[in-house]
This record gives sequence, structure tokens and C-alpha cells, in this order.
Amino acid sequence: MIIVGEKINTSLKGVSEAIKARDVEFVKGRAIAQAENGANYIDVNCGTLINEEVEALPWLVRTVQEAVDRPCCIDSPNHLALAAALKEHRGKPLINSITAEKERYENILPLVKEYQAGIIALVMDDEHGMPKDAETGITVGIKLIESLLKDGVPLDDIYIDPLIQPVSTSAEMGLVATDTIRGIRKAYPEVHFMCGLSNVSYGLPKRGLLNRTFLIMCMFAGLDGAILDPGNLEMMGAIRAAEVLMNQDQFATNYLDAFRKGLLEF
Amino acid sequence: MIIVGEKINTSLKGVSEAIKARDVEFVKGRAIAQAENGANYIDVNCGTLINEEVEALPWLVRTVQEAVDRPCCIDSPNHLALAAALKEHRGKPLINSITAEKERYENILPLVKEYQAGIIALVMDDEHGMPKDAETGITVGIKLIESLLKDGVPLDDIYIDPLIQPVSTSAEMGLVATDTIRGIRKAYPEVHFMCGLSNVSYGLPKRGLLNRTFLIMCMFAGLDGAILDPGNLEMMGAIRAAEVLMNQDQFATNYLDAFRKGLLEF
Repeated sequence: MIIVGEKINTSLKGVSEAIKARDVEFVKGRAIAQAENGANYIDVNCGTLINEEVEALPWLVRTVQEAVDRPCCIDSPNHLALAAALKEHRGKPLINSITAEKERYENILPLVKEYQAGIIALVMDDEHGMPKDAETGITVGIKLIESLLKDGVPLDDIYIDPLIQPVSTSAEMGLVATDTIRGIRKAYPEVHFMCGLSNVSYGLPKRGLLNRTFLIMCMFAGLDGAILDPGNLEMMGAIRAAEVLMNQDQFATNYLDAFRKGLLEF
Repeated sequence: MIIVGEKINTSLKGVSEAIKARDVEFVKGRAIAQAENGANYIDVNCGTLINEEVEALPWLVRTVQEAVDRPCCIDSPNHLALAAALKEHRGKPLINSITAEKERYENILPLVKEYQAGIIALVMDDEHGMPKDAETGITVGIKLIESLLKDGVPLDDIYIDPLIQPVSTSAEMGLVATDTIRGIRKAYPEVHFMCGLSNVSYGLPKRGLLNRTFLIMCMFAGLDGAILDPGNLEMMGAIRAAEVLMNQDQFATNYLDAFRKGLLEF
């Protein structure tokens, strides 16, 4: 699994204040903790700081990469903020995100190409908005993959986000997501997937239990990446266990390593 | 999910002694606790008491059914012990188990018919023994279903056991089991499944984590029954969460009920 650490995001408590104050130690501390807990990418998102995103996002990239040797997942719908942040990035970034919406696609694509970035592609277009069924999600996802391939983005750089929606508002939304993953995986076995999980449990108690249970279902359907808190040991333990059981962890190397480090004690 | 409580089994610590001593309170206590925790059936197994199984098994059935209004899952390869126990059983029993091995099939089938019992059918025959790949498991499973149907057992009474084997001895055994479930489910969407899970984690640390992760994978592949300890709250919580996410728990009724009873506090 490709793990994107989600903890540097101004929608989380305390983060907005720290970033407004350009608190270097706070940001570095979060980056280091996530890298140590197994994050492959560090997500940076300051989307709630509307008027200063274009300055704050590159500062975040710089600050994170001063602390850890991980690439960033640069997270904004604003192509100007992305452009400024990408200029500061070392290594191969992941851009979060493009959609099949005409304007957004045209604004983001040149950045993906210029920086040979990985790109998270949400299954959304101007016609459907958020998909209400798997058929729509699959159709939009395949359309996105085909557009990106035609525009010269390699398949290995594409990360499809199936857009997880709450089961509390519509009980079939868990299966809509897993069916979307399966359908797109069937058409393009080599494409990547990436998504946040926690929307699925919105409005229900014990969200952590639902989120990690859902992650296992999604992995089994073909998900190979997730945006989450790598400090959530129960979630990470579920991932390590699922990797063993799905024959993705030869000789249970990662699982036993996590066990020896005491990361499966919960 | 159909839950079979596994805690009355002479291979478990202390149970053999209690059953040898015909300790009524011990057996009733275990039956009541499992029923309260959500067992739909109470498994009774005294297979290690070789010389007295034919007397002990009917005593177990009687004792359990004096304590709880649940049917038993009568668990023995010995048709004489099964026959004696079935005579004592009230309601519709589940027999654990038949295979496609000629002698065992011929010995067990008459009991299934006489008592109109549910029957757990292990994907084993004389030619293959324990299947080493999903193709064999699917072939033997379908052969068993077809034999049982031809012999007059209704599909709704058949519970296929895909025979879980350890990933520590062969890393693909998790996927062999899930592929076997999926393949048989595809051919017979209405058949039931039933299995023990804990073999999968044999030889690895933190078996509970692996077992409950594997259960979610198996449920997603089509498993609708499991033999387990209903007092294992983490396992039961994973089941309740998975039922919500797989749209098998309308309005999250069971999940919220478990939450209110404090059963999701772990």
C-alpha cells in the first residue's frame, strides 16, 4: 500500500493557526512523525487559508522537505497554488487532484506534464458531479484514464480516487466505491488508486472501526493507496495484516517488522 | 452473518475435563454466554474423547438446549456420534460435517435427510484431500453441491466450508480461500458458507488481528457464516461494521444496537 499522511491540513484542529504563524517546528514535527510511521508521501493542504494559499503551500512543501526525504502530495484544487508549490518541490510529486471537469482538467494537466507528477484523478465530471452509482464512477474513471493517457501521462502516474461517500446517507455507498474500484481495476489492471476513507463513516459512531473495516474491503477490491493518519496504529495494523493475507507481503516481512517494533500493540 | 459459537469443544483448554465430569453448569454457562453475544448456533464438539463421544455428544446437545433456545451445530466426523446426538436435538440442527469422500458422504447423508438438517460440506474428496488451489476447491465444492442437491438436500441447507489453510506455510492460501468462496458463490449465489478462520494465522503473531482482517475479506468474497468465539468483541465488531458497509444491515440497526450495548468498546 502507498500511504499518504494526511496530518498537515488546515481543516484539522490547530493546523490552521500553526501554518498562519509559519510554525516551522510544528510542520516539521508532523512530517517526521508521519514518515516514521510509514507515510510514503506527506500531504500538504492549506485550502482553508483562501487568501494566502499561493504563499503558504510552497512554504509547506519547503518546510516538509527540509525535515524528511519523502515527496509531497500537493493538495489543492487551485492551479496557481499548485504551480507555486511544485516549483519548490524536490523529487517526483503527487498532485491532488484533477477531475474530468473541463476547466479543472485544462488548468491542472500542464502542471502534471511539466513536473512529470503523479496525479490523483477524482471520478467527477461536469455532467455527473459526484457519482451516485458504480456504473457512473467506472465510466468517468475510465474516461479520465483515457484522457490522461492520450495527453501523455503514463498509466503508472495515474491514481484514481473513487470518491468515498457516507453509508449513513445512502446505504449502498460502500459497495458503490468497491464496485467502482473493481470495475476500473478490471479495465486498467496497472492503474493506481488513492482515496480518503473517513467519509464512509460520517454520521455513525465508532468511525475508526468502520474506516479500517472499509479499508480492508477496498484493498481487497483493488485499492493500492490511501490518504490517512499513519499514526493510527489500528488502521496501519489492518493494512499490514491485509497485505499478508492478500499475498502482498512476502514472508510477512513488513508485518513481522511492525510486530517487532511494537506497532501491533493495540 | 450466521454465527456459530465455537467455545464448547474439547480441544479447548478446560473443556475436556468439564465434559468428562459432565459438568452441567460449565456447559450451560458457555452456551448462555455465546447466545447472549450473538451466536445463532452453538457448536458442540467432543471429538478428543474418542471412547465416549457417542455418549458425550448427545449429553452435550441436551445440556446446551436446556440452557438456550438456539439450535446446535453438531460437530463430529463420526456418524454414530452424530446419530446419537441428533436424536436428542430439538429444532433444525446443523451437522458439521460432510465431505465428498465416498465413505464419509455415504455415512452422513442419511442423517442429513432423516433430520432435514443443515449440513456443512468441506471441499475435500478422496482424490485431492485438502485443496491446494482455488480451482480444485471450486471444483470439489460444486461437485458436493450437485451431489447433495441430487440426493434431495435443499440448497438453502448447504453450508460450504472452503477449508482455510495457513498463510505462513503457503502465502497464497488467503487468496485461495477467498477465490474458492467467490467461485462457488458465482455458480450457486444462494448457497451458504461456513468456516473457521483461525487456521489462516497459524504460526504468526497477533493472530486475532489477522483473523478478523481475514474475516472481512471472506465476507466481501461472499462468506455468510463463521465458526468463532462470539465473546471476541473485536471480531464481532468487525462483523457488525462490515455488515453496515456491505449494505447487509438496514439503517445500521445491528451496528447501532451493538454500540448502545457497549459491545464496540475495545
